[in-house]
This record gives sequence, structure tokens and C-alpha cells, in this order.
Amino acid sequence: MRELFLIGIGTGNPDHLTAQAAETINRAELILLPRKGPDKEDLADLRRQILAAVLTNPAVRVVEFDLPVRDAANPDYRAGVDDWHDAIALAWARAAGDGAGTVALLVWGDPSLYDSTLRIAARLPAPPRLTVVPGITAIQALAAAHAIPLNRIGAPFMITTGRRLRDEGFPPGCDTCVVMLDGECSFQSLPPEGLSIWWGAYLGMAAQILDHGPLAEAGARIIRARAAARAEHGWIMDIYLLRRDG
Amino acid sequence: MRELFLIGIGTGNPDHLTAQAAETINRAELILLPRKGPDKEDLADLRRQILAAVLTNPAVRVVEFDLPVRDAANPDYRAGVDDWHDAIALAWARAAGDGAGTVALLVWGDPSLYDSTLRIAARLPAPPRLTVVPGITAIQALAAAHAIPLNRIGAPFMITTGRRLRDEGFPPGCDTCVVMLDGECSFQSLPPEGLSIWWGAYLGMAAQILDHGPLAEAGARIIRARAAARAEHGWIMDIYLLRRDG
Repeated sequence: MRELFLIGIGTGNPDHLTAQAAETINRAELILLPRKGPDKEDLADLRRQILAAVLTNPAVRVVEFDLPVRDAANPDYRAGVDDWHDAIALAWARAAGDGAGTVALLVWGDPSLYDSTLRIAARLPAPPRLTVVPGITAIQALAAAHAIPLNRIGAPFMITTGRRLRDEGFPPGCDTCVVMLDGECSFQSLPPEGLSIWWGAYLGMAAQILDHGPLAEAGARIIRARAAARAEHGWIMDIYLLRRDG
Repeated sequence: MRELFLIGIGTGNPDHLTAQAAETINRAELILLPRKGPDKEDLADLRRQILAAVLTNPAVRVVEFDLPVRDAANPDYRAGVDDWHDAIALAWARAAGDGAGTVALLVWGDPSLYDSTLRIAARLPAPPRLTVVPGITAIQALAAAHAIPLNRIGAPFMITTGRRLRDEGFPPGCDTCVVMLDGECSFQSLPPEGLSIWWGAYLGMAAQILDHGPLAEAGARIIRARAAARAEHGWIMDIYLLRRDG
């Protein structure tokens, strides 16, 4: 593997693909598609749909591989993640074999944002040259769906995680934060007074759900809607923006 | 004007355009193109190049208009910006005339990020329905060009401005910040020890320049390179990421 293309594919709307992403998909010798088990078959299908829509070069080979599962029993969380990333790098190398000089991976959202692909690539036995193709992130899909700006005029904002919000409260030094990787509606841990929320799930997909309002009112609605949607689909991807009022 | 499409076009690489952006460009009755004066003719040309590449529907009209200039002499900065935004909304309405139900504007980067278009749209005499099409931001173009992640694993990061960095120092509560709207290399205001910088200018364009390294070494190089590039091109757009080491 001489060169690895990490291609951002957006959040589930095939129309979010850029011209550069489509062109790079057609320029790889081999595309690696992860199989993540039956729970996430929708997401694997989305990658297949994107290839069906934009892959026109018959010389490009598509190889599916089983994504290793993280050993959740490892008491050292960080060591467990390191082992898992090594196992994924090995699975890439095996699936690619010796015959492919340029290999592509389709990355949900954008490879730069809360994604391990860049770090896994650095663990390959002979690290290839990396080419990153940016993609539309869930942050932008959320702001676009609500037609809101991310920042107040000239003001900063924080991108953070559900865990951080629970552990540390509303981030310091800003009036806006976007919360990702939150499986627990961690906005519940904040005093809701003076905060508004803009929430979105399955952004860009047919199943997209949106809600917004004062956190004190919208929070309980969102918790109910999220639980119902997750039960219906078997999985959920969601994100939200919190802003101090006024 | 019944509906207004705000279409993110990325940072200067026409290949960053999404399929949704190209489709929306072809679905508007009228596209408004701002003329910003001879200093920024490169940027107006870029919009024309994008239209030349993707506009295939002959029924779409393209209308250029002179973007009003902000009264920098107004001692009340905020009131000056409000007046300016009112003037731009009026210029849109005049240029669009009475004949167009759906109007599109091409927005640099993404309409949600440090951009006034959404706020100006809210000032139209009869606010139209807004449809926002997300675009690749300079933040993503920077991370992709350097092939770096924006965040450390599970860690938050701040998006901020040059002015905030000068006034308030490195943002609290995070180890990474991305600095936008900085005409003054405001990283100079920070003690450089323990910080690294990843900088990019003209991202995605043929003129793209990149540099990175410990701030103590790279800072002076970047100041020189930025001044030289600005003198050569007559304008510059740049962005950088600062990260605490370790």
C-alpha cells in the first residue's frame, strides 16, 4: 500500500459527496469497505449506495472486510483502544493484500473530526502516503438543517463530547457548544435555564428528525423522540448545539 | 423572493462543491453574484468559474450586483454593521427584482461559519424561506491539507477568532483551537512554549501554502510567508490550528 485515500462522505446524504470525493473514489486501485455486523448494516449499505451512484471506473476493485471488535473487557480503556486500532490496521493490510498501490477508505463525515482512521493509518507496518478528502460534517449538516449560524458575530464556540459535558458542564469561554458522541442525552446534566438547544438525528437521511427550543422545554421532548427513533431503527446518530440565550 | 438558497461552495477548490450544491445552483430561478471591487476580483472570478463548470440549466438567470461598502467611519461599530447588512439586503432585493421566486447566493466556505448571509437574509423586507446547502469549510480544508485530526481522542476544541486570541489568550478548557478571521498573525500574542501550529493559506487553490511546526520556530516563518504572499496576490485568506504539545 503506497498511498491511502481517506475520503469524507458526509453524514448519510449521498448528495453531500463532493466532486473531489467522487473523483478520488474512481482513482483508487482498491476500495476497502468495512462490515460492522448486522446492527450497523444500514451504514454499510449507505457506503454501497454511494459506490453504486458514483463509482464508474471498472478497474477499481471493492473489497469488504470484517471490522475487528474492540475488547470491551480490557480494564485499561486506552490500551484496549490501542490494541483495537492495531487490529484494524492489520485487517486493512490483509484485505488490501499485496496487489494494490492506492487504497481508499470511505469515512463517515470528515476524516479530521472525531474519527480514528488517521490514527489507525499511522499504525500500518509501512505507513503509506495519506491523502485526505474533506467531507460535510454532522456539525454542518445540523446547522444547515436548522438554517442557523454556528457562532454569534465574531464569537468563539466549542466542539465537545457528551462525556465532557457531563463531567465538566457547559464549556468555559464561549456561549455556544456543539456536542458529539453523546449516547446519553448529556444535556440533562446541565441546569436548563438560559440555554436553548438545536438537535438533529439521521441528518441528511430520509429519516432526519429535528427539534429545537429552550432546553427546559425541548430537552424532555428530545429524550423521548431519541428513544423512540432508536427503538424503531435499531441505531441512531445524533448531534446538538447548545447556546446561552441573549 | 419566495425562497432563498444559501449554497456553501468551499474555500476555492471547485472540486469541493457537493452534488447538492451543483443541483441547487441549477434549480434556482436567479443567482445573485456580488461584485466586491477590483481588490477581490479573484474571488468574484472563482464564483464565475464554479458557475461555468456546473450551471447547465439555461433557464437560470445570473445577475451581478455591487456589494455595498461598510461605513468604517461610523464610531458605533455594531450599528455600522447593522446599517451595512440592511444595505446588502436592499441590494439583494433590488438585484433580484420582482420576477424571481427562488434566488440563490454562493457562500464562501459554509453559510453557518463566520458568515453574515443568514443574518442579512433575516433583514429582507419579506423574509423568504431559507434553504442552506452545507459546504466544505476552511477548517476542514486545513485539516485535510495537513492530514491531521482536529481533536485529540475524545477531547474538545475551540473555534475562535484572531481578535479573541489577542484579547483573551489561548482558550480555556481545551488543548486545541482553530483561529479564523485573523489579519494580524495573532499567535504572536501567545507565549510560544509548548504550542505547535498548523497554518494554511489559499487552501484548495493552486496558490495553496502550508507550514507547521513548533510555534517558537514556525511563527516567524509564517509571518514572513504571509506578508510575501499577500504582497504578491493583493489579498490573502488563511487559517491555523494551535495545539498544546504532549
